[in-house]
Amino acid sequence: MRQDKMALVGFMQASNTSDFPGSWLHPDSRSDFLTADYFQEIARTLERGKFHAGFFDDRLALPDMHGGSHKHAVSAGVRAVKLDVATVLAVMSTVTKHLGLGATYSTTYYHPFHIARVFQTLDNMSGGRIAWNVVTSLNDSEAQNMGQEALPAHDSRYDVADEIMEAIFGLWNSWDYDALIVDKETRQFADPEKVHRVDYNGKHVKTKGPLTVPRSPQGNPVILQAGESQRGEEFAARWAEMVFTVAPTKEAGAKKYTHFKQLIDAAGRDRNHCKILPLLKFVVGKTQSEAEDKKALIDSLVTEEASLSLLSEITNFDFAKKTIDEPFTQEDLDAMTGGQSFVQRVVDARPNPTPRDFMEVTGRGTFQGAWVGTGADIADRMTDWFADDACDGFVVAASHVPAGYADFVDQVVPELQKREVFQTEYAGTTLRENLGLPLNTHVK
Amino acid sequence: MRQDKMALVGFMQASNTSDFPGSWLHPDSRSDFLTADYFQEIARTLERGKFHAGFFDDRLALPDMHGGSHKHAVSAGVRAVKLDVATVLAVMSTVTKHLGLGATYSTTYYHPFHIARVFQTLDNMSGGRIAWNVVTSLNDSEAQNMGQEALPAHDSRYDVADEIMEAIFGLWNSWDYDALIVDKETRQFADPEKVHRVDYNGKHVKTKGPLTVPRSPQGNPVILQAGESQRGEEFAARWAEMVFTVAPTKEAGAKKYTHFKQLIDAAGRDRNHCKILPLLKFVVGKTQSEAEDKKALIDSLVTEEASLSLLSEITNFDFAKKTIDEPFTQEDLDAMTGGQSFVQRVVDARPNPTPRDFMEVTGRGTFQGAWVGTGADIADRMTDWFADDACDGFVVAASHVPAGYADFVDQVVPELQKREVFQTEYAGTTLRENLGLPLNTHVK
Repeated sequence: MRQDKMALVGFMQASNTSDFPGSWLHPDSRSDFLTADYFQEIARTLERGKFHAGFFDDRLALPDMHGGSHKHAVSAGVRAVKLDVATVLAVMSTVTKHLGLGATYSTTYYHPFHIARVFQTLDNMSGGRIAWNVVTSLNDSEAQNMGQEALPAHDSRYDVADEIMEAIFGLWNSWDYDALIVDKETRQFADPEKVHRVDYNGKHVKTKGPLTVPRSPQGNPVILQAGESQRGEEFAARWAEMVFTVAPTKEAGAKKYTHFKQLIDAAGRDRNHCKILPLLKFVVGKTQSEAEDKKALIDSLVTEEASLSLLSEITNFDFAKKTIDEPFTQEDLDAMTGGQSFVQRVVDARPNPTPRDFMEVTGRGTFQGAWVGTGADIADRMTDWFADDACDGFVVAASHVPAGYADFVDQVVPELQKREVFQTEYAGTTLRENLGLPLNTHVK
Repeated sequence: MRQDKMALVGFMQASNTSDFPGSWLHPDSRSDFLTADYFQEIARTLERGKFHAGFFDDRLALPDMHGGSHKHAVSAGVRAVKLDVATVLAVMSTVTKHLGLGATYSTTYYHPFHIARVFQTLDNMSGGRIAWNVVTSLNDSEAQNMGQEALPAHDSRYDVADEIMEAIFGLWNSWDYDALIVDKETRQFADPEKVHRVDYNGKHVKTKGPLTVPRSPQGNPVILQAGESQRGEEFAARWAEMVFTVAPTKEAGAKKYTHFKQLIDAAGRDRNHCKILPLLKFVVGKTQSEAEDKKALIDSLVTEEASLSLLSEITNFDFAKKTIDEPFTQEDLDAMTGGQSFVQRVVDARPNPTPRDFMEVTGRGTFQGAWVGTGADIADRMTDWFADDACDGFVVAASHVPAGYADFVDQVVPELQKREVFQTEYAGTTLRENLGLPLNTHVK
């Protein structure tokens, strides 16, 4: 019997939609996604539900790989809006006191000095509640917006990312925890022996330091990561304090959980200092039949075009080059240089896959794989996964926002609390305290 | 007699100090400069005083040119902290409704897609109250933090900056004003004919577009600029909607004002659509004698080391290479590749200048040049400058924060309002409305 409690993290998008591209069409979704109030309501709802955190994914381009044009994405609202996620986090931080707030910034397109400064500023402004979700980016559209020809190769993106992490921890560590003095009488602002140059001089990345931002109440942001390729897993085992995974069944979840915890052991880290959190999609109703009706409404908002558009985006390959039931060649599959574990998952399930196979196996663009039931049903199943070591908690994705989160908070969270597997109050004031994580584990 | 009213903009630093590096030592300065509340109080104070806006300067490095080390800056608190300014703006935007909020981001170190996205997100989140202060950066320390060897040459920085502006306006203009539809019934999110690729392909800068952020309530952020070199002035005349200047006397201000307005005419723009705003430092007291006592306290916080450190930072030259009265050689002066108009100002006043000459002429690191008097005195002088076309308003710098701004708001603003040269209420909801600026003047 586990003595710890599960961690819950909301999966947020600084977009016109949730992760589900049809969400903006839902009758209960809010349409004012360009306002502060829209995101502040999400933050307040998650905090009311005692969520440990919410975090934003990110993409530096409209979905325009499919057919080589953004027109369909703009017309149908397929995640056509992508706000700067750090800015939106700052706006959400001001109306919450306990909720952790995470955002994705890409190591492929931002300099480590900038990432270190933005996230350390956020961490100070929020009182120590920030997480950074490290990604290496996915497709050529992002590269071309950022002035490059094409996305760099997959493994080399991670080699650069390792250096960027070293540089960023160097910068965060450039101010010792007790460097600041701020004494008006002695006129001593900080101890000059406790603020260090970094002089990081990697193969790909250089920075001098020190950072211009001192330590935050939790030292530095929590590191979140989602890489599921072998190279991505190695990276996560070294750096991540929360890992976002996808597991279609409890058995698959348990296998991945065991595997990841072993990787963390092998990296010489404490396995409790990295939380494994599979994605949970849900549709909750007061009865099973109400939940199924709600799911049917959501399914009516799915379109094939949105699915193909998002498949093109994540694989870095134009799915319009094939008809829906035409198998990809090996050359096609090799050219899918975006999310590698994503492609592998399809090939493992359906050798010689077609675009339809990709749609069916991954459910991309749909709300496929959602747990549909009452709050008690969903809480039972979550408790079962948690008790059987298939996870340390979940990344919870709402079908539409903010109402989907309110449903979860009102109907699932009380059931989890009744089962004593989820917190009824926050443990502390910083995200590290609330997750039971130590201060920075990557000190020089 | 001018019919318009003056514009007031607060000069803010996301730092442990105001522009005056001794400010953190002032008995009335707050020491919690790493918290949201510190900056939110500044925002509330400026809005209470009906300021049009406040804006942050920025620097991507600690002052460490002087003697080749950051130790003195850290020890004495010489602007040793520099938070990410966009993040701090977002935090301030949530507690204000009318105040414009500006921040500096460097065209030398940020990609235009990133700048366009961050500022357009801020502009949406704030309801259309954002300004971007365009700088091209100053010294090698910033370059080395950002992974480069040295600052690029002055004029080439502006050539790149021109391209970056073209790219950024391309991105901001990639969504037409009426592109968004968001109709759940027809399932039409936006008009695909009204969202455009940019395909900007300059000599230095490339970006594809469209931007992932639609239009904001004021279209796009207001452009603020401070370049005073000839190349900087050309740049400002083309792009700026507010120009931040330095003028030691009314006559100098009037000369600069006339010159800038002519440049704006020559650029084919409406001269009313670019506000000329000289820096105003002040110390206000209920009596002249109280004001002078306050000034004496401020002067007691000045150190020669802070002045030399900030001179080294802005000129990109190590002032520790000379003794205080040793003249610089022409080779030294040529090596000062940072703020060129800054160096020129000293050479014009004192040929063959020494470090002391730089200190005395520029007052860098001191509160030299402040207007010291009662609220009525300072308001009279401001009114005189405004009436005689020496400015369109002022950039107001407090000696210490937040109390310095409160002094101005409580003692100077009512006097300006009594003289009917300053607003008693905001004209509209966006910064453009409040400044009387049109929508984006750089449409394709």
